[in-house]
Amino acid sequence: MELFKTFKEIQKKQKAYQLVLNIASWDSNTEAPKNAIPYRAEMLSIISGESFSLATSKAYQEAVYGLFKEKDQLNEQSRKEIERAKRGLDKIVKIPKDEYVEYAKLVNMSQRVWEDAKENDDFESFKPYLNKIIEAQKRMIRYRGHEENAYNVLLDDFEEGMSKELYDAFFDVIKTDLVPFVKEVLAKKPNEKPAFITDLYEEADQKRFVEYLMDVFNYDLDRGLLKKSVHPFTWNTHSQDVRFTVRYLKNFVFSSIFAAIHELGHALYEQQIDEDLDTTNLNTGTSMGIHESQSRFYENVIGRSYPFWEVHYDKMKTMFPKQLENVSLDDFYKGINWVEESFIRVEADELTYPLHILIRYEIERMIFEDNIDLETLPEVWNNKMKAYLNIEPQKASDGILQDVHWSAGMFGYFPTYALGSAYAAQIYYTIIEELDFEKLIKENNIAAINNWLKAKIHHFGALKKPRELLKEITNEDFNPNYYVRYLKEKYAAIYLKE
Amino acid sequence: MELFKTFKEIQKKQKAYQLVLNIASWDSNTEAPKNAIPYRAEMLSIISGESFSLATSKAYQEAVYGLFKEKDQLNEQSRKEIERAKRGLDKIVKIPKDEYVEYAKLVNMSQRVWEDAKENDDFESFKPYLNKIIEAQKRMIRYRGHEENAYNVLLDDFEEGMSKELYDAFFDVIKTDLVPFVKEVLAKKPNEKPAFITDLYEEADQKRFVEYLMDVFNYDLDRGLLKKSVHPFTWNTHSQDVRFTVRYLKNFVFSSIFAAIHELGHALYEQQIDEDLDTTNLNTGTSMGIHESQSRFYENVIGRSYPFWEVHYDKMKTMFPKQLENVSLDDFYKGINWVEESFIRVEADELTYPLHILIRYEIERMIFEDNIDLETLPEVWNNKMKAYLNIEPQKASDGILQDVHWSAGMFGYFPTYALGSAYAAQIYYTIIEELDFEKLIKENNIAAINNWLKAKIHHFGALKKPRELLKEITNEDFNPNYYVRYLKEKYAAIYLKE
Repeated sequence: MELFKTFKEIQKKQKAYQLVLNIASWDSNTEAPKNAIPYRAEMLSIISGESFSLATSKAYQEAVYGLFKEKDQLNEQSRKEIERAKRGLDKIVKIPKDEYVEYAKLVNMSQRVWEDAKENDDFESFKPYLNKIIEAQKRMIRYRGHEENAYNVLLDDFEEGMSKELYDAFFDVIKTDLVPFVKEVLAKKPNEKPAFITDLYEEADQKRFVEYLMDVFNYDLDRGLLKKSVHPFTWNTHSQDVRFTVRYLKNFVFSSIFAAIHELGHALYEQQIDEDLDTTNLNTGTSMGIHESQSRFYENVIGRSYPFWEVHYDKMKTMFPKQLENVSLDDFYKGINWVEESFIRVEADELTYPLHILIRYEIERMIFEDNIDLETLPEVWNNKMKAYLNIEPQKASDGILQDVHWSAGMFGYFPTYALGSAYAAQIYYTIIEELDFEKLIKENNIAAINNWLKAKIHHFGALKKPRELLKEITNEDFNPNYYVRYLKEKYAAIYLKE
Repeated sequence: MELFKTFKEIQKKQKAYQLVLNIASWDSNTEAPKNAIPYRAEMLSIISGESFSLATSKAYQEAVYGLFKEKDQLNEQSRKEIERAKRGLDKIVKIPKDEYVEYAKLVNMSQRVWEDAKENDDFESFKPYLNKIIEAQKRMIRYRGHEENAYNVLLDDFEEGMSKELYDAFFDVIKTDLVPFVKEVLAKKPNEKPAFITDLYEEADQKRFVEYLMDVFNYDLDRGLLKKSVHPFTWNTHSQDVRFTVRYLKNFVFSSIFAAIHELGHALYEQQIDEDLDTTNLNTGTSMGIHESQSRFYENVIGRSYPFWEVHYDKMKTMFPKQLENVSLDDFYKGINWVEESFIRVEADELTYPLHILIRYEIERMIFEDNIDLETLPEVWNNKMKAYLNIEPQKASDGILQDVHWSAGMFGYFPTYALGSAYAAQIYYTIIEELDFEKLIKENNIAAINNWLKAKIHHFGALKKPRELLKEITNEDFNPNYYVRYLKEKYAAIYLKE
């Protein structure tokens, strides 16, 4: 028990460091003036250093590894805390501090280089940094004792329990079953994009509509707030402080609306975690994949559904009378589910989205398994775009340079985006068995859906592992067929009806 | 030199702690959701504890006191750094950590009790806390070895070099020279307050005008930002990040306008400090009094001057055509310098303001020198209001409970507010000798005035002590007669002209 006390004390301190670093990062990403950043970066690296020293301190190691050996004597929650702490410790403890510090600098620098490279469509300037990051990643995995199967280690880092084998099975279904369907839809969809999609919607009005949506989804403003930032994100430190941001594009109102609903999904997850867990390391969503399943569920399964807009379209028309004057509900529904070949993942529609992820997954495998020559990456990228989406980017910023992830060393992260959508579909086929889902949406009773998700997923925080959770909810292991079924049912009804 | 290296290393870490604590406090005071606060308070107390341990660590003490002994061998800047560090250390090093922690808790609790007491006009409920705070203050001063002259210690804490004797001389001038003048003005001023002062001005429009003023005063938005909060304040971590807030009262537009100019004064001071000082403990305004002199100078000497509105009143009329339609520049000038007896210090006009401070100064002296029975404080307060301003508050929230300071343990702070105004007047009579001040204002060349203040005051940060600075600028020691002269010249012209 002495050991557990030590563990809790050090963890509490770590949580304090994490809190202030998080608040600083929120500030940096939403409002800090430009010139504040360099000094701040230096100061924050000191605090990060303190936090790292604590997280790898001998006392903490002894506590975590000591308790792990006797974990069967702990109660369930304490055992989970120790398991999670050990998982975190295993990742960093064998890496020399120098290597860690160097890596942090490299990643910092690479992101800046990537920004410029993207701006200038210049993959060559980014390539050496990409190479260094990949080498560093491989080295760090070796330190951790996993020379073989490097990519598996990364996949498991971002989604515990996942592996190449499981993702291969998932993406095989996408490739063989979804890709042909997508091609069929793209061939049959109308040529002309409805004008109201890209009409002008004033920022202040968009914001008011987002605020309306916050209310619809029962987001608790005593424990959160909405703000503006360059890229939308959800931010949280504990269940009592869960914020999110959107951006407002004057000529693409759906960007703020669906980003808001997406982030609300992340935010509701975090707000609905048991407050009791706030003093533990379990007070957070259990994995990237499950988190994304919640954001996609709210955004797509609820937010892009017909029943949802049966309730809310009138409100939207009142707020945007000019833009939507001659747009029927049916047309609006088609508009929010508009499908098209596109280069940029973050702007892709629900149907083509997984193909963007498939491409990244295949390339990451090549990098970590086949030691592919980086020189050829842009070409590989373009060929895959051509194969799956039948379009070919003319510049690197529309292709391989579009995403920040690799410059930040995040390999193995992309697959969780598609996985989240697939989890969401699997959960959907369970929820419609257990609730009168469509009726609840039509009654504007999102609270009932929130409650179901709270009871089944949210309140647990990280007490349960992702695959364990999914199995308990759906009575089944992860099954990608639900995802394809969901997409086919929805998009066939919109685009392939005779 | 080894010792100096240690000093700089520990100081850098302390600055990192200070930065994250500051950012958290900015967040708490401007946007953090209500329920975020309790958990955050607990976490921040951990970080504060780390910072305190560092600030009182043996290594730091050895470095600071060691270097102080040999300070004559240091260059000027390093010597000033050590002197300032020693001054900070002296204040806390002899206080037992337990006492410090208890005091922090007491102050925290007292502020909450005060809030309720103010809300309920209930001095009795606050009295025991006030008593505990005063006792704790006296005890801490004893620990520091200053049993005698406790109030002097507090006065010097908030304004280095000031003492009862100096403040007595200052407030004597106020009492004998200004109080009768104020009474004369109050007797002769028109009875009816002009309606445009309390007309309705929409928040969004007020904000746009504040943004216009930011531009007029050359506030640098690459190193700052404007935000809204319950009480206006300026916030800074270093010269590259200096922000300020205002609040918008729909029926009192002057509140946001002059709070903005006031905070701009604080902010320009901080933005104009030499960037080279950012890595030192000298990267801040040198004292409360000098800081307040800058805010008051911008707010009153520039912002409430006739020439200023000769340039900007047209702009204001364009932005508020309905409210100012029939208001001449002369009437407007009288409106922004409207004088009246009022209960609340923060809403007081420029002329009666020092009398509010006089009252607090006299009461603080009674508390620390005469051990006055706290029971009698409200009565004492009311009698003084009657004597100096000829009005008597009917409730404690309009009287003794109006200000947060004492509940936060800040005794000796109030006098710096009046001192700042007096410094500003003394600086004013110098600046008009050296610059064509009125012409610069009429040419909307605030930049030239900023530059003068930068060269004479701002860029030094805390390199020079307040009284030293004042003497260098004005060729004279602090002389309160300038203040009274300034007020008399200005307000006689407005109110006592035949």
